[in-house]
Amino acid sequence: MPNRLGPPLETPLFDRIALIGLGLIGSSIARAVRHRNLARTIVAIDRDDATLARVRELRIADEVTSDLAAGVRGADLVILCVPVGACETVAKTMKASLKAGAIVSDVGSVKASVIAQVQPHLPDGVSFVPAHPVAGTEYSGPDAGFATLFLKRWCILTPPEGTDEAAIERMRDFWSALGSDVEVMTAQHHDLVLAITSHVPHLIAYNIVGTAADLETVTQSEVIKFSAGGFRDFTRIAASDPTMWRDVFLHNKEAVLEMLARLNEDIALLARAIRWGEGDKLHDLFTRTRAIRRGIISQGQETPEPDFGRRREDP
Amino acid sequence: MPNRLGPPLETPLFDRIALIGLGLIGSSIARAVRHRNLARTIVAIDRDDATLARVRELRIADEVTSDLAAGVRGADLVILCVPVGACETVAKTMKASLKAGAIVSDVGSVKASVIAQVQPHLPDGVSFVPAHPVAGTEYSGPDAGFATLFLKRWCILTPPEGTDEAAIERMRDFWSALGSDVEVMTAQHHDLVLAITSHVPHLIAYNIVGTAADLETVTQSEVIKFSAGGFRDFTRIAASDPTMWRDVFLHNKEAVLEMLARLNEDIALLARAIRWGEGDKLHDLFTRTRAIRRGIISQGQETPEPDFGRRREDP
Repeated sequence: MPNRLGPPLETPLFDRIALIGLGLIGSSIARAVRHRNLARTIVAIDRDDATLARVRELRIADEVTSDLAAGVRGADLVILCVPVGACETVAKTMKASLKAGAIVSDVGSVKASVIAQVQPHLPDGVSFVPAHPVAGTEYSGPDAGFATLFLKRWCILTPPEGTDEAAIERMRDFWSALGSDVEVMTAQHHDLVLAITSHVPHLIAYNIVGTAADLETVTQSEVIKFSAGGFRDFTRIAASDPTMWRDVFLHNKEAVLEMLARLNEDIALLARAIRWGEGDKLHDLFTRTRAIRRGIISQGQETPEPDFGRRREDP
Repeated sequence: MPNRLGPPLETPLFDRIALIGLGLIGSSIARAVRHRNLARTIVAIDRDDATLARVRELRIADEVTSDLAAGVRGADLVILCVPVGACETVAKTMKASLKAGAIVSDVGSVKASVIAQVQPHLPDGVSFVPAHPVAGTEYSGPDAGFATLFLKRWCILTPPEGTDEAAIERMRDFWSALGSDVEVMTAQHHDLVLAITSHVPHLIAYNIVGTAADLETVTQSEVIKFSAGGFRDFTRIAASDPTMWRDVFLHNKEAVLEMLARLNEDIALLARAIRWGEGDKLHDLFTRTRAIRRGIISQGQETPEPDFGRRREDP
């Protein structure tokens, strides 16, 4: 995978790309599309006036509108970058304005639900290629985006059976041009994989931060002061966008609850090992988990810098 | 708090400091003591020959030995930097060699157990001032240490009742000189606070990484590939030293199990909210947890950089 996004294409992949929702992901796509010249025209659509004003100031789109139906008109690629719970409303509102032959895609962290929400509303001749770029930060909004957000990250496509192969290939080319590696799988498998690599970790992080804030025996001030012992790592993902994450859990209910149940079984075993002083069991687990970290680093999904490369001062 | 460690003292705080265990913490203390001239002589004691050889190469101590009794002789400060489960053996082995008036301290992540292990073996005239610098990385060994590890971090002292006040003050000065803020509390309260800010987060991280590795429905390769969705944050602390952490859990059993039970109650409530589609409850929690993150950043225990400041490439 390249170390940089690469130069602008001589011929754009698309004539007109409409982005619905200019938050962290939508605004990062806009920046990367602009940088690589992937579209002749970028249309930014958002229902929030403050966001639209900011997008104009940032000059990351060619056209800016709050009118969803007008915004998607004539676009040959429309990407939904909204919380997954909003997808059906968006699909219904825009369906009559979609151009024949257009590709509709999204960036949602849940895929089966998005397909169920969007697919029934799309007219014949429009292809739906659901996508999930596995990338992000804990910040939200158009200022949080940056062009290299997807560089060296995976983007998962989950086209429903029967999706036009040419449309899938165009989306593969699109995400490759944003610097991502692309993998195709079913929506059902995606939702299971992401439940364990993303959704349950977020849920656990939100939970542990909430529990710590509510203790009677330890003050919030103490939790904050002594957070460098490990707790602060959890606060990063527990600072992610509340609406986005509420929707993820509501729309990937079964897989999240299944993975959570599995996690709870393992926690019970671990608690038992602690209660009974079974040090070998603990040591074995703690040794095995190191190998996973090494795998993540060797596959380029993380750097080996200690403490996430948090800045060290000179002595 | 200063941005740097500060210049060497004109007059060292101690004549002879003996460090027992030259891993991440012990070797960081050695480097910081040298940098600030806190001791005329630094003695490095370790039972591992490879560690001792490396300490010699790194030139971070003035004397290097595997002989614990000989190493502590004449020291006016002796700091145990070993896994908490090893403290009693160390105390027994060194007790006859301790100098009258010496201060013994430690850096263990658990305090009540360390006091119970060490205190009974110390001769009259030797003060025990247990300490816990809340700082570290996921790496181990003498090469992992660095002089600024404790800068802007908290160090908690938990002197047993009746400890000589002058000895406590000297240890406060010592840790301040390493760049830390110092707080004094009881060992019992320390163990409760750290259970939630450090021990349970580590346990949960080890557990979630272990669970992910053992799933039948999702491959280990998929877990690694798609770890940027949140999972990889957990793998950092789940890569911490297995022996150190085994000992932490075995020696802070009650507080860890109590906090874990509390966490499990909260997880059950959250799972119920997901099952019943109670989006407002989820959104409320996810909003509250953001405030804790802001507190940690505003108190200087974390920087505001997105994604822990993981390196971004230029486009």
